Amino acid sequence: MNNYRLELCYDGTRYNGWQKLGSTGNTIQNKIETVLSRILEQPVEVSASGRTDAGVHAKMQVCSFKTDSEKSCEEILEELRKYLPADIGAINLLPAEPGFHARYNCTGKKYIYRIWTSPLPNVFERNYVYTYTDQLNVEDMRKAAEMLCGKHDFSGFTSLKKSKKSTVRTIREIAIDEYPEEIRITACGDGFLYNMVRIIVGTLIEIGNGKRPPDSIEEMLNSGVRANAGFTAPAKGLCLAEIYY
Amino acid sequence: MNNYRLELCYDGTRYNGWQKLGSTGNTIQNKIETVLSRILEQPVEVSASGRTDAGVHAKMQVCSFKTDSEKSCEEILEELRKYLPADIGAINLLPAEPGFHARYNCTGKKYIYRIWTSPLPNVFERNYVYTYTDQLNVEDMRKAAEMLCGKHDFSGFTSLKKSKKSTVRTIREIAIDEYPEEIRITACGDGFLYNMVRIIVGTLIEIGNGKRPPDSIEEMLNSGVRANAGFTAPAKGLCLAEIYY
Repeated sequence: MNNYRLELCYDGTRYNGWQKLGSTGNTIQNKIETVLSRILEQPVEVSASGRTDAGVHAKMQVCSFKTDSEKSCEEILEELRKYLPADIGAINLLPAEPGFHARYNCTGKKYIYRIWTSPLPNVFERNYVYTYTDQLNVEDMRKAAEMLCGKHDFSGFTSLKKSKKSTVRTIREIAIDEYPEEIRITACGDGFLYNMVRIIVGTLIEIGNGKRPPDSIEEMLNSGVRANAGFTAPAKGLCLAEIYY
Repeated sequence: MNNYRLELCYDGTRYNGWQKLGSTGNTIQNKIETVLSRILEQPVEVSASGRTDAGVHAKMQVCSFKTDSEKSCEEILEELRKYLPADIGAINLLPAEPGFHARYNCTGKKYIYRIWTSPLPNVFERNYVYTYTDQLNVEDMRKAAEMLCGKHDFSGFTSLKKSKKSTVRTIREIAIDEYPEEIRITACGDGFLYNMVRIIVGTLIEIGNGKRPPDSIEEMLNSGVRANAGFTAPAKGLCLAEIYY
Protein backbone atom coordinates (compact mmCIF):
# COMPACT_ATOMS: atom_id res chain seq x y z
CA MET A 1 0.00 0.00 0.00
CA ASN A 2 1.26 3.47 -0.86
CA ASN A 3 0.75 6.30 1.59
CA TYR A 4 -0.47 9.74 0.50
CA ARG A 5 -0.77 13.23 1.90
CA LEU A 6 -3.85 15.11 0.67
CA GLU A 7 -4.14 18.87 1.23
CA LEU A 8 -7.67 20.22 1.21
CA CYS A 9 -9.67 23.38 1.73
CA TYR A 10 -13.41 23.62 2.39
CA ASP A 11 -16.31 25.89 3.10
CA GLY A 12 -17.87 24.10 6.08
CA THR A 13 -21.22 25.92 5.90
CA ARG A 14 -23.39 23.04 4.75
CA TYR A 15 -21.52 20.18 6.47
CA ASN A 16 -21.90 18.47 9.78
CA GLY A 17 -18.19 19.03 10.46
CA TRP A 18 -15.17 17.01 9.39
CA GLN A 19 -16.44 13.90 11.09
CA LYS A 20 -19.23 13.18 13.49
CA LEU A 21 -18.51 10.35 15.88
CA GLY A 22 -20.42 7.28 14.81
CA SER A 23 -22.03 9.14 11.94
CA THR A 24 -22.23 8.26 8.30
CA GLY A 25 -24.01 11.53 7.63
CA ASN A 26 -23.22 14.71 5.80
CA THR A 27 -19.60 15.17 6.88
CA ILE A 28 -16.60 16.34 4.89
CA GLN A 29 -14.74 13.12 5.66
CA ASN A 30 -17.61 11.02 4.29
CA LYS A 31 -17.74 13.11 1.13
CA ILE A 32 -13.99 12.74 0.53
CA GLU A 33 -13.93 9.02 1.30
CA THR A 34 -16.86 8.42 -1.06
CA VAL A 35 -15.21 10.29 -3.92
CA LEU A 36 -11.72 8.81 -3.29
CA SER A 37 -13.12 5.27 -3.06
CA ARG A 38 -14.81 5.69 -6.45
CA ILE A 39 -11.69 7.14 -8.04
CA LEU A 40 -9.41 4.43 -6.63
CA GLU A 41 -11.99 1.65 -7.08
CA GLN A 42 -11.44 0.39 -3.55
CA PRO A 43 -12.56 1.43 -0.07
CA VAL A 44 -10.40 4.27 1.27
CA GLU A 45 -10.23 5.67 4.79
CA VAL A 46 -8.72 9.09 5.33
CA SER A 47 -7.27 10.48 8.59
CA ALA A 48 -7.25 14.24 9.00
CA SER A 49 -4.96 16.35 11.20
CA GLY A 50 -8.02 16.70 13.43
CA ARG A 51 -11.74 17.32 13.31
CA THR A 52 -13.40 20.63 12.60
CA ASP A 53 -16.86 21.44 14.02
CA ALA A 54 -20.01 21.82 11.95
CA GLY A 55 -19.82 25.14 10.07
CA VAL A 56 -16.07 25.63 10.60
CA HIS A 57 -13.99 26.20 7.46
CA ALA A 58 -10.50 25.19 6.41
CA LYS A 59 -8.09 27.05 4.14
CA MET A 60 -5.80 24.11 4.81
CA GLN A 61 -6.59 20.67 6.15
CA VAL A 62 -4.21 17.76 5.73
CA CYS A 63 -5.20 14.13 5.63
CA SER A 64 -3.42 10.89 4.91
CA PHE A 65 -4.65 7.68 3.33
CA LYS A 66 -3.29 4.42 1.95
CA THR A 67 -4.12 2.73 -1.32
CA ASP A 68 -2.58 0.18 -3.67
CA SER A 69 -4.11 1.90 -6.69
CA GLU A 70 -1.61 2.44 -9.48
CA LYS A 71 -3.03 5.79 -10.51
CA SER A 72 -0.53 8.66 -10.33
CA CYS A 73 -0.89 11.56 -7.91
CA GLU A 74 -1.63 13.84 -10.87
CA GLU A 75 -4.45 11.60 -12.07
CA ILE A 76 -5.99 11.25 -8.62
CA LEU A 77 -5.73 14.99 -7.98
CA GLU A 78 -7.35 15.82 -11.30
CA GLU A 79 -10.22 13.44 -10.63
CA LEU A 80 -10.66 14.75 -7.11
CA ARG A 81 -10.98 18.27 -8.48
CA LYS A 82 -13.49 16.99 -11.01
CA TYR A 83 -15.71 15.01 -8.63
CA LEU A 84 -15.53 16.85 -5.30
CA PRO A 85 -18.35 19.37 -4.74
CA ALA A 86 -17.59 23.06 -5.31
CA ASP A 87 -17.27 23.72 -1.55
CA ILE A 88 -14.43 21.21 -1.08
CA GLY A 89 -11.16 21.88 -2.89
CA ALA A 90 -8.24 19.51 -3.44
CA ILE A 91 -5.15 21.72 -3.09
CA ASN A 92 -2.47 19.08 -3.52
CA LEU A 93 -1.77 15.35 -3.35
CA LEU A 94 1.72 14.08 -2.57
CA PRO A 95 3.33 10.69 -1.93
CA ALA A 96 4.08 10.38 1.80
CA GLU A 97 6.59 8.35 3.85
CA PRO A 98 5.11 4.98 4.88
CA GLY A 99 4.87 6.12 8.50
CA PHE A 100 3.22 9.48 7.83
CA HIS A 101 -0.11 9.95 9.60
CA ALA A 102 -1.92 13.30 9.33
CA ARG A 103 -3.07 13.30 12.96
CA TYR A 104 -0.28 11.55 14.86
CA ASN A 105 2.50 13.48 13.13
CA CYS A 106 0.85 16.89 13.42
CA THR A 107 2.99 19.21 15.57
CA GLY A 108 0.76 22.26 15.53
CA LYS A 109 -2.07 24.21 13.95
CA LYS A 110 -3.03 27.74 13.15
CA TYR A 111 -6.64 28.91 13.38
CA ILE A 112 -8.04 32.27 12.29
CA TYR A 113 -11.25 33.73 13.72
CA ARG A 114 -12.85 36.68 11.90
CA ILE A 115 -15.07 39.11 13.83
CA TRP A 116 -16.92 41.55 11.53
CA THR A 117 -17.26 44.76 13.55
CA SER A 118 -19.08 47.02 11.08
CA PRO A 119 -22.86 47.59 10.98
CA LEU A 120 -22.43 47.53 7.18
CA PRO A 121 -23.39 43.95 6.30
CA ASN A 122 -20.66 41.77 4.79
CA VAL A 123 -22.86 40.16 2.16
CA PHE A 124 -20.12 38.35 0.22
CA GLU A 125 -18.31 36.83 3.21
CA ARG A 126 -21.36 36.37 5.43
CA ASN A 127 -20.63 32.67 6.01
CA TYR A 128 -16.99 33.32 6.98
CA VAL A 129 -17.36 36.03 9.65
CA TYR A 130 -19.15 36.48 12.97
CA THR A 131 -20.76 39.91 13.14
CA TYR A 132 -20.30 41.65 16.49
CA THR A 133 -20.79 45.42 16.40
CA ASP A 134 -20.49 46.41 20.10
CA GLN A 135 -17.30 48.26 21.03
CA LEU A 136 -14.34 45.97 21.82
CA ASN A 137 -11.27 47.05 23.80
CA VAL A 138 -8.55 45.35 21.80
CA GLU A 139 -5.81 46.22 24.30
CA ASP A 140 -7.67 44.34 27.04
CA MET A 141 -8.20 41.42 24.66
CA ARG A 142 -4.45 41.36 23.94
CA LYS A 143 -3.61 41.31 27.66
CA ALA A 144 -5.93 38.34 28.18
CA ALA A 145 -4.60 36.57 25.07
CA GLU A 146 -1.07 36.93 26.43
CA MET A 147 -2.12 35.12 29.63
CA LEU A 148 -3.55 32.23 27.62
CA CYS A 149 -0.26 31.67 25.82
CA GLY A 150 2.10 28.99 27.07
CA LYS A 151 1.51 25.52 28.46
CA HIS A 152 -1.70 25.19 30.48
CA ASP A 153 -4.43 22.75 31.39
CA PHE A 154 -7.27 24.04 29.21
CA SER A 155 -10.00 21.86 30.74
CA GLY A 156 -12.02 25.05 31.42
CA PHE A 157 -11.88 25.87 27.70
CA THR A 158 -13.48 22.79 26.17
CA SER A 159 -17.02 21.49 25.83
CA LEU A 160 -15.95 17.86 26.04
CA LYS A 161 -16.80 16.00 29.20
CA LYS A 162 -13.91 14.92 31.40
CA SER A 163 -11.95 11.98 30.09
CA LYS A 164 -8.62 10.40 30.86
CA LYS A 165 -6.99 12.17 27.94
CA SER A 166 -4.71 15.08 28.73
CA THR A 167 -6.24 18.54 28.49
CA VAL A 168 -2.81 20.19 28.63
CA ARG A 169 -1.95 22.15 25.49
CA THR A 170 0.63 24.80 24.56
CA ILE A 171 -0.53 27.94 22.80
CA ARG A 172 2.40 29.51 20.99
CA GLU A 173 0.77 32.78 20.02
CA ILE A 174 -2.58 34.56 19.90
CA ALA A 175 -2.39 37.61 17.62
CA ILE A 176 -5.24 40.11 17.48
CA ASP A 177 -5.18 42.27 14.36
CA GLU A 178 -7.44 45.23 13.75
CA TYR A 179 -8.77 46.22 10.34
CA PRO A 180 -11.23 49.03 9.55
CA GLU A 181 -14.24 46.69 9.69
CA GLU A 182 -12.80 43.56 11.25
CA ILE A 183 -10.90 42.11 14.18
CA ARG A 184 -8.95 38.96 13.32
CA ILE A 185 -7.75 36.56 16.00
CA THR A 186 -4.99 34.14 14.98
CA ALA A 187 -4.17 31.30 17.36
CA CYS A 188 -1.18 28.99 16.95
CA GLY A 189 -0.54 26.02 19.20
CA ASP A 190 0.49 22.40 19.39
CA GLY A 191 -3.17 21.38 19.46
CA PHE A 192 -6.60 22.56 20.51
CA LEU A 193 -9.31 20.75 22.48
CA TYR A 194 -12.90 20.39 21.26
CA ASN A 195 -14.41 23.92 20.88
CA MET A 196 -11.28 25.42 22.49
CA VAL A 197 -10.60 28.13 19.90
CA ARG A 198 -14.26 29.17 19.84
CA ILE A 199 -14.39 29.37 23.66
CA ILE A 200 -11.16 31.41 23.71
CA VAL A 201 -12.64 33.80 21.15
CA GLY A 202 -15.93 34.08 23.09
CA THR A 203 -13.97 34.75 26.28
CA LEU A 204 -11.82 37.40 24.57
CA ILE A 205 -14.99 39.09 23.27
CA GLU A 206 -16.45 39.18 26.80
CA ILE A 207 -13.18 40.72 27.99
CA GLY A 208 -13.17 43.20 25.10
CA ASN A 209 -16.72 44.37 25.85
CA GLY A 210 -15.94 44.86 29.55
CA LYS A 211 -18.02 42.00 30.93
CA ARG A 212 -14.87 40.42 32.42
CA PRO A 213 -11.47 41.88 33.36
CA PRO A 214 -8.40 40.63 31.43
CA ASP A 215 -6.88 39.01 34.53
CA SER A 216 -9.94 36.78 35.01
CA ILE A 217 -8.15 34.41 32.64
CA GLU A 218 -6.02 33.18 35.51
CA GLU A 219 -9.05 32.00 37.50
CA MET A 220 -10.54 30.35 34.39
CA LEU A 221 -7.35 28.39 33.81
CA ASN A 222 -6.92 27.46 37.49
CA SER A 223 -10.50 26.35 38.11
CA GLY A 224 -10.77 24.18 35.00
CA VAL A 225 -14.52 24.82 35.03
CA ARG A 226 -16.11 25.44 31.61
CA ALA A 227 -18.80 27.71 33.10
CA ASN A 228 -16.15 30.19 34.25
CA ALA A 229 -15.03 30.95 30.69
CA GLY A 230 -16.92 32.93 28.02
CA PHE A 231 -19.46 31.84 25.43
CA THR A 232 -18.63 29.58 22.50
CA ALA A 233 -18.23 31.95 19.52
CA PRO A 234 -20.19 30.85 16.42
CA ALA A 235 -18.55 28.27 14.16
CA LYS A 236 -18.84 30.26 10.94
CA GLY A 237 -16.16 32.80 11.92
CA LEU A 238 -13.55 30.08 12.42
CA CYS A 239 -11.13 28.78 9.81
CA LEU A 240 -8.34 26.22 10.13
CA ALA A 241 -5.47 27.96 8.36
CA GLU A 242 -2.28 25.90 8.67
CA ILE A 243 -1.14 22.48 9.81
CA TYR A 244 2.43 22.01 10.95
CA TYR A 245 4.47 18.80 10.72
CA MET B 1 -43.91 62.38 -0.54
CA ASN B 2 -40.21 62.38 0.27
CA ASN B 3 -37.73 60.94 -2.19
CA TYR B 4 -34.89 58.63 -1.11
CA ARG B 5 -31.71 57.16 -2.52
CA LEU B 6 -30.98 53.64 -1.28
CA GLU B 7 -27.54 52.10 -1.84
CA LEU B 8 -27.44 48.30 -1.81
CA CYS B 9 -25.15 45.35 -2.35
CA TYR B 10 -26.19 41.77 -2.97
CA ASP B 11 -25.05 38.25 -3.66
CA GLY B 12 -27.27 37.38 -6.62
CA THR B 13 -26.71 33.61 -6.42
CA ARG B 14 -30.15 32.56 -5.23
CA TYR B 15 -32.21 35.27 -6.94
CA ASN B 16 -33.98 35.47 -10.24
CA GLY B 17 -32.19 38.75 -10.96
CA TRP B 18 -33.05 42.28 -9.90
CA GLN B 19 -36.44 42.13 -11.58
CA LYS B 20 -38.10 39.74 -13.95
CA LEU B 21 -40.54 41.37 -16.31
CA GLY B 22 -44.08 40.63 -15.19
CA SER B 23 -42.85 38.48 -12.33
CA THR B 24 -43.68 38.64 -8.67
CA GLY B 25 -41.20 35.84 -8.00
CA ASN B 26 -37.92 35.52 -6.23
CA THR B 27 -36.27 38.76 -7.33
CA ILE B 28 -34.14 41.20 -5.39
CA GLN B 29 -36.55 44.03 -6.16
CA ASN B 30 -39.49 42.05 -4.75
CA LYS B 31 -37.54 41.25 -1.60
CA ILE B 32 -36.62 44.89 -1.03
CA GLU B 33 -40.11 46.19 -1.78
CA THR B 34 -41.64 43.66 0.60
CA VAL B 35 -39.30 44.60 3.45
CA LEU B 36 -39.54 48.37 2.80
CA SER B 37 -43.34 48.25 2.60
CA ARG B 38 -43.47 46.54 5.98
CA ILE B 39 -41.05 49.00 7.56
CA LEU B 40 -42.85 52.05 6.14
CA GLU B 41 -46.33 50.55 6.63
CA GLN B 42 -47.36 51.49 3.09
CA PRO B 43 -46.77 50.05 -0.39
CA VAL B 44 -43.38 51.13 -1.76
CA GLU B 45 -42.05 50.79 -5.29
CA VAL B 46 -38.31 51.05 -5.87
CA SER B 47 -36.55 51.92 -9.13
CA ALA B 48 -33.00 50.68 -9.57
CA SER B 49 -30.27 52.11 -11.81
CA GLY B 50 -30.96 49.09 -14.01
CA ARG B 51 -31.65 45.38 -13.85
CA THR B 52 -29.09 42.70 -13.15
CA ASP B 53 -29.51 39.17 -14.55
CA ALA B 54 -30.20 36.10 -12.44
CA GLY B 55 -27.00 35.17 -10.58
CA VAL B 56 -25.26 38.52 -11.15
CA HIS B 57 -24.00 40.31 -8.03
CA ALA B 58 -23.76 43.95 -7.00
CA LYS B 59 -21.19 45.59 -4.78
CA MET B 60 -23.20 48.74 -5.46
CA GLN B 61 -26.70 49.14 -6.76
CA VAL B 62 -28.64 52.38 -6.35
CA CYS B 63 -32.40 52.66 -6.22
CA SER B 64 -34.85 55.44 -5.51
CA PHE B 65 -38.27 55.38 -3.89
CA LYS B 66 -40.84 57.77 -2.50
CA THR B 67 -42.71 57.56 0.79
CA ASP B 68 -44.57 59.89 3.13
CA SER B 69 -43.44 57.90 6.17
CA GLU B 70 -42.08 60.10 8.92
CA LYS B 71 -39.39 57.63 9.95
CA SER B 72 -35.85 59.01 9.76
CA CYS B 73 -33.25 57.68 7.31
CA GLU B 74 -31.32 56.22 10.27
CA GLU B 75 -34.38 54.33 11.50
CA ILE B 76 -35.25 52.98 8.06
CA LEU B 77 -31.64 51.97 7.39
CA GLU B 78 -31.39 50.18 10.73
CA GLU B 79 -34.61 48.26 10.10
CA LEU B 80 -33.54 47.39 6.56
CA ARG B 81 -30.32 45.91 7.93
CA LYS B 82 -32.36 43.99 10.49
CA TYR B 83 -34.99 42.56 8.14
CA LEU B 84 -33.22 42.09 4.79
CA PRO B 85 -31.81 38.58 4.24
CA ALA B 86 -28.06 38.07 4.77
CA ASP B 87 -27.37 38.12 1.01
CA ILE B 88 -28.78 41.63 0.52
CA GLY B 89 -27.02 44.50 2.31
CA ALA B 90 -28.27 48.04 2.84
CA ILE B 91 -25.16 50.21 2.46
CA ASN B 92 -26.74 53.63 2.89
CA LEU B 93 -30.02 55.54 2.73
CA LEU B 94 -30.05 59.24 1.92
CA PRO B 95 -32.69 61.90 1.29
CA ALA B 96 -32.75 62.71 -2.44
CA GLU B 97 -33.83 65.72 -4.50
CA PRO B 98 -37.52 65.47 -5.49
CA GLY B 99 -36.57 64.84 -9.13
CA PHE B 100 -33.95 62.13 -8.49
CA HIS B 101 -34.65 58.83 -10.22
CA ALA B 102 -32.09 56.02 -9.95
CA ARG B 103 -32.52 54.90 -13.56
CA TYR B 104 -33.24 58.12 -15.49
CA ASN B 105 -30.46 60.10 -13.80
CA CYS B 106 -27.81 57.40 -14.08
CA THR B 107 -24.93 58.60 -16.27
CA GLY B 108 -22.80 55.47 -16.21
CA LYS B 109 -21.92 52.15 -14.64
CA LYS B 110 -18.90 50.07 -13.83
CA TYR B 111 -19.02 46.27 -14.03
CA ILE B 112 -16.32 43.83 -12.95
CA TYR B 113 -16.06 40.31 -14.37
CA ARG B 114 -13.79 37.81 -12.54
CA ILE B 115 -12.27 34.89 -14.46
CA TRP B 116 -10.60 32.34 -12.17
CA THR B 117 -7.71 30.92 -14.20
CA SER B 118 -6.18 28.45 -11.74
CA PRO B 119 -6.91 24.70 -11.60
CA LEU B 120 -6.78 25.15 -7.80
CA PRO B 121 -10.47 25.46 -6.90
CA ASN B 122 -11.59 28.78 -5.41
CA VAL B 123 -13.82 27.26 -2.74
CA PHE B 124 -14.58 30.47 -0.83
CA GLU B 125 -15.44 32.67 -3.80
CA ARG B 126 -16.91 29.95 -6.00
CA ASN B 127 -20.15 31.89 -6.56
CA TYR B 128 -18.32 35.07 -7.59
CA VAL B 129 -15.91 33.81 -10.25
CA TYR B 130 -16.12 31.95 -13.55
CA THR B 131 -13.45 29.26 -13.74
CA TYR B 132 -11.69 29.11 -17.11
CA THR B 133 -8.31 27.38 -17.05
CA ASP B 134 -7.29 27.30 -20.75
CA GLN B 135 -4.49 29.67 -21.73
CA LEU B 136 -5.66 33.21 -22.52
CA ASN B 137 -3.62 35.72 -24.53
CA VAL B 138 -4.28 38.87 -22.55
CA GLU B 139 -2.55 41.14 -25.07
CA ASP B 140 -4.99 40.01 -27.78
CA MET B 141 -7.89 40.52 -25.38
CA ARG B 142 -6.70 44.06 -24.69
CA LYS B 143 -6.47 44.86 -28.42
CA ALA B 144 -10.05 43.67 -28.89
CA ALA B 145 -11.25 45.54 -25.79
CA GLU B 146 -9.73 48.72 -27.18
CA MET B 147 -11.82 48.33 -30.37
CA LEU B 148 -15.00 47.96 -28.32
CA CYS B 149 -14.41 51.26 -26.56
CA GLY B 150 -16.12 54.39 -27.81
CA LYS B 151 -19.62 54.99 -29.17
CA HIS B 152 -21.02 52.06 -31.15
CA ASP B 153 -24.26 50.32 -32.03
CA PHE B 154 -23.97 47.21 -29.81
CA SER B 155 -26.96 45.36 -31.31
CA GLY B 156 -24.65 42.39 -31.99
CA PHE B 157 -23.80 42.27 -28.28
CA THR B 158 -27.22 41.83 -26.71
CA SER B 159 -29.63 38.92 -26.33
CA LEU B 160 -32.69 41.16 -26.51
CA LYS B 161 -34.77 40.96 -29.65
CA LYS B 162 -34.81 44.02 -31.87
CA SER B 163 -36.91 46.86 -30.55
CA LYS B 164 -37.28 50.53 -31.37
CA LYS B 165 -35.04 51.49 -28.47
CA SER B 166 -31.54 52.64 -29.30
CA THR B 167 -28.80 50.05 -29.08
CA VAL B 168 -26.08 52.71 -29.25
CA ARG B 169 -23.90 52.91 -26.16
CA THR B 170 -20.56 54.43 -25.25
CA ILE B 171 -17.96 52.29 -23.50
CA ARG B 172 -15.47 54.53 -21.73
CA GLU B 173 -12.95 51.89 -20.77
CA ILE B 174 -12.40 48.15 -20.62
CA ALA B 175 -9.46 47.30 -18.37
CA ILE B 176 -8.06 43.79 -18.21
CA ASP B 177 -5.99 43.14 -15.10
CA GLU B 178 -3.93 40.00 -14.50
CA TYR B 179 -3.43 38.44 -11.07
CA PRO B 180 -1.62 35.19 -10.29
CA GLU B 181 -4.84 33.15 -10.39
CA GLU B 182 -7.31 35.53 -11.94
CA ILE B 183 -8.05 37.81 -14.88
CA ARG B 184 -10.35 40.69 -14.02
CA ILE B 185 -12.23 42.63 -16.69
CA THR B 186 -13.57 46.04 -15.68
CA ALA B 187 -15.98 47.77 -18.05
CA CYS B 188 -17.16 51.37 -17.66
CA GLY B 189 -19.74 52.96 -19.89
CA ASP B 190 -22.82 55.15 -20.07
CA GLY B 191 -25.00 52.04 -20.09
CA PHE B 192 -25.05 48.41 -21.13
CA LEU B 193 -27.70 46.46 -23.06
CA TYR B 194 -29.24 43.22 -21.81
CA ASN B 195 -26.42 40.61 -21.44
CA MET B 196 -23.96 43.03 -23.08
CA VAL B 197 -21.16 42.76 -20.50
CA ARG B 198 -21.40 38.96 -20.43
CA ILE B 199 -21.30 38.75 -24.24
CA ILE B 200 -18.32 41.11 -24.34
CA VAL B 201 -16.52 38.91 -21.79
CA GLY B 202 -17.41 35.72 -23.70
CA THR B 203 -16.12 37.32 -26.90
CA LEU B 204 -12.89 38.46 -25.23
CA ILE B 205 -12.36 34.91 -23.91
CA GLU B 206 -12.80 33.49 -27.43
CA ILE B 207 -10.25 36.03 -28.65
CA GLY B 208 -7.89 35.22 -25.79
CA ASN B 209 -8.02 31.49 -26.50
CA GLY B 210 -7.32 32.05 -30.21
CA LYS B 211 -10.73 31.05 -31.55
CA ARG B 212 -11.16 34.53 -33.07
CA PRO B 213 -8.66 37.23 -34.06
CA PRO B 214 -8.77 40.55 -32.16
CA ASP B 215 -9.81 42.50 -35.25
CA SER B 216 -12.94 40.37 -35.68
CA ILE B 217 -14.55 42.88 -33.30
CA GLU B 218 -15.03 45.28 -36.20
CA GLU B 219 -17.17 42.81 -38.15
CA MET B 220 -19.20 41.98 -35.02
CA LEU B 221 -19.94 45.65 -34.45
CA ASN B 222 -20.71 46.34 -38.13
CA SER B 223 -22.97 43.34 -38.71
CA GLY B 224 -25.09 43.84 -35.59
CA VAL B 225 -25.75 40.09 -35.57
CA ARG B 226 -25.66 38.43 -32.15
CA ALA B 227 -24.46 35.11 -33.62
CA ASN B 228 -21.24 36.75 -34.81
CA ALA B 229 -20.11 37.57 -31.26
CA GLY B 230 -18.87 35.15 -28.61
CA PHE B 231 -20.72 33.15 -25.98
CA THR B 232 -22.53 34.70 -23.04
CA ALA B 233 -20.15 34.30 -20.10
CA PRO B 234 -21.80 32.85 -16.94
CA ALA B 235 -23.68 35.28 -14.70
CA LYS B 236 -21.86 34.36 -11.50
CA GLY B 237 -18.55 36.02 -12.53
CA LEU B 238 -20.25 39.39 -13.02
CA CYS B 239 -20.63 42.12 -10.42
CA LEU B 240 -22.10 45.59 -10.76
CA ALA B 241 -19.48 47.72 -9.01
CA GLU B 242 -20.36 51.41 -9.35
CA ILE B 243 -23.20 53.63 -10.48
CA TYR B 244 -22.45 57.16 -11.66
CA TYR B 245 -24.80 60.16 -11.42
